[in-house]
Amino acid sequence: MTGFKRFTPLVQSLPASVPFVGPETSERASGTLFKARIGANENGFGFSPLVQKTIEDEAHLSWRYGDPESFDLKNAICDKLAVDFNNIVIGEGIDGLLGLAARMIVETNTPVVTSIGAYPTFNFHVAGFGGKLHAVPYKQDKEDLDALLDKVQETNAALVYFANPDNPMGTYWSREKVVDFAKNLPATTMLILDEAYVEMAPDAAVPAIDAFLEMPNVLRMRTFSKAYGLAGLRVGYAIGHPDTILMFDRVRNHFGMSRLSQKAAVAAISDDNWLEKVLNLISSSRQKITKIVATHGFTSIPSATNFVTIDCGRDGDYAREILKELMERGIFVRMPGVAPLDRCIRVSVGPDEEIDRFAAALNDIMSKQK
Amino acid sequence: MTGFKRFTPLVQSLPASVPFVGPETSERASGTLFKARIGANENGFGFSPLVQKTIEDEAHLSWRYGDPESFDLKNAICDKLAVDFNNIVIGEGIDGLLGLAARMIVETNTPVVTSIGAYPTFNFHVAGFGGKLHAVPYKQDKEDLDALLDKVQETNAALVYFANPDNPMGTYWSREKVVDFAKNLPATTMLILDEAYVEMAPDAAVPAIDAFLEMPNVLRMRTFSKAYGLAGLRVGYAIGHPDTILMFDRVRNHFGMSRLSQKAAVAAISDDNWLEKVLNLISSSRQKITKIVATHGFTSIPSATNFVTIDCGRDGDYAREILKELMERGIFVRMPGVAPLDRCIRVSVGPDEEIDRFAAALNDIMSKQK
Repeated sequence: MTGFKRFTPLVQSLPASVPFVGPETSERASGTLFKARIGANENGFGFSPLVQKTIEDEAHLSWRYGDPESFDLKNAICDKLAVDFNNIVIGEGIDGLLGLAARMIVETNTPVVTSIGAYPTFNFHVAGFGGKLHAVPYKQDKEDLDALLDKVQETNAALVYFANPDNPMGTYWSREKVVDFAKNLPATTMLILDEAYVEMAPDAAVPAIDAFLEMPNVLRMRTFSKAYGLAGLRVGYAIGHPDTILMFDRVRNHFGMSRLSQKAAVAAISDDNWLEKVLNLISSSRQKITKIVATHGFTSIPSATNFVTIDCGRDGDYAREILKELMERGIFVRMPGVAPLDRCIRVSVGPDEEIDRFAAALNDIMSKQK
Repeated sequence: MTGFKRFTPLVQSLPASVPFVGPETSERASGTLFKARIGANENGFGFSPLVQKTIEDEAHLSWRYGDPESFDLKNAICDKLAVDFNNIVIGEGIDGLLGLAARMIVETNTPVVTSIGAYPTFNFHVAGFGGKLHAVPYKQDKEDLDALLDKVQETNAALVYFANPDNPMGTYWSREKVVDFAKNLPATTMLILDEAYVEMAPDAAVPAIDAFLEMPNVLRMRTFSKAYGLAGLRVGYAIGHPDTILMFDRVRNHFGMSRLSQKAAVAAISDDNWLEKVLNLISSSRQKITKIVATHGFTSIPSATNFVTIDCGRDGDYAREILKELMERGIFVRMPGVAPLDRCIRVSVGPDEEIDRFAAALNDIMSKQK
């Protein structure tokens, strides 16, 4: 390489690729704006009016740094979930917390286990600290917990990741199965249980909030980006054993949390009525998407999230072609990156007018195939 | 330790201490709110009305993730500074970028050079990646560039940090001296030139914007937290050689930037009139603080920043006592952490009413000493 020679060998060895291309990047490349933004599992139904009011009321104090302890937000989460203050750490979205967790556990060649086709940003962070990633296939469109456990034991993994409900497939395991998985892990393996979509999941998918609080080797991660509709404000949190939570303070960017984002998240979590309303909208939108694609003979995988993963019924090339055609028609959607999941495309729920545009575009595409 | 056993040896060895205690933490401890918030070099004069309007206009779109490329913000910075798009990386404040830079360069025992009493958060990040910190004393209340250079050569440092203007002393070196320092560095040493206070500095302190753009071993870091008054929104940037800037993409949290913060920063940098107005207010407030403390026989170190560092004329214990008494009277101020700088307290500029409260509290403290 030219340039500065003393970047660490690890950083020099990392690929220049990024986990996801943003929709704005695609818009700039095409020179046109998307007509439907239903690709990043954002929440197009928006957020509580209380959040809007809070942002307007608090904006003028943005000359102040945010509270580095996120005290009010942690308390609001504790009240809502019935956990203790020292069970919570706040971060700049789950992505930020995943990066910190990787840093805390992963060194060169540290074995880490995940699923083939699971969250690319987790892989990005593991690679970023030099970890050795071992990945097992999905089984019937679900993360294969038995295979994950076997792989953990086989590799003596220090870290294992899975999401429940899952992204990109939208499936879930029962709370009993998830608890069993955690209990069967060696104490020397940290589980990151990504619960980004937990608010949209059936109760049967959600372990009790205190199920893992005595286990220093489990971190549950949640976010305000999905059900609460605050993706652009970057607020996530991890729930765990106090000893584990405390370790984040050794490495996190203490003044990294936006003050306005903290305030907005407090408002968001206080509005149960809005959440209920949005959950109903999400549920209806899932059904709407399912119906639309069924008219073309596509099967929707039952979803416990705010997106629907649609089995296009053939191979990855076919699904990629449909995705490409949708994107060309101004519909921002994404799809799983690897086989056999890549026979699917993934459509986020959203307001009816956006889903209608998706329907029209899909109709146009499929009619030309005949 | 109890708990999870496979945190990295490095992370396990890190202290639990944090770089700064937030003012909210002190408020919670005392049970009272500060009457003057002039301790963190925030900008109590606030931000441009265009920022306020932008936040109000854009808030409702906070359900969207921010553009991971921060394209519009980078362009706005490029237009303002006359640098190229690939000379800029955006991050969650300078603190966030310092963490990334440390990660990119620092491994176990990597030699790093800074000044004794300079920015604790830099030290936090260096320690957080296992670096070996070598620090040289200030000289006549300025960072000692000759000593820094000698120490770089002596230790074969991979990274050297200094701030110009300096925090916590408020002093600066001339642009010629700074450029000489950079040019005399080995090509194998990265300079982080922290220019958090650059907008408040005299032109004579600021190297030309293109002074280092051909040098892969110089990173200038700037922020929207100080002159632009957006500390709570967490926006900083680094300016550098394209090869060096590109390395950040390998490790940064690509979706870590708040969408609203990006929009607000674009508005802030567009409002030159507001900036000029604030710079005048800052200058007046510096003079006001200087006058106030002079009545008690204290000397103010001439400042090129938005704070005034006040030499209390005796030792650290004496200055700490004054600081404590100020804090007890509801005046949030800070002071340098180590001798001989700790003979000083550091007071941020702010609206007249806050400075008046500081004056009253100081008067009360000093009158009781007689």
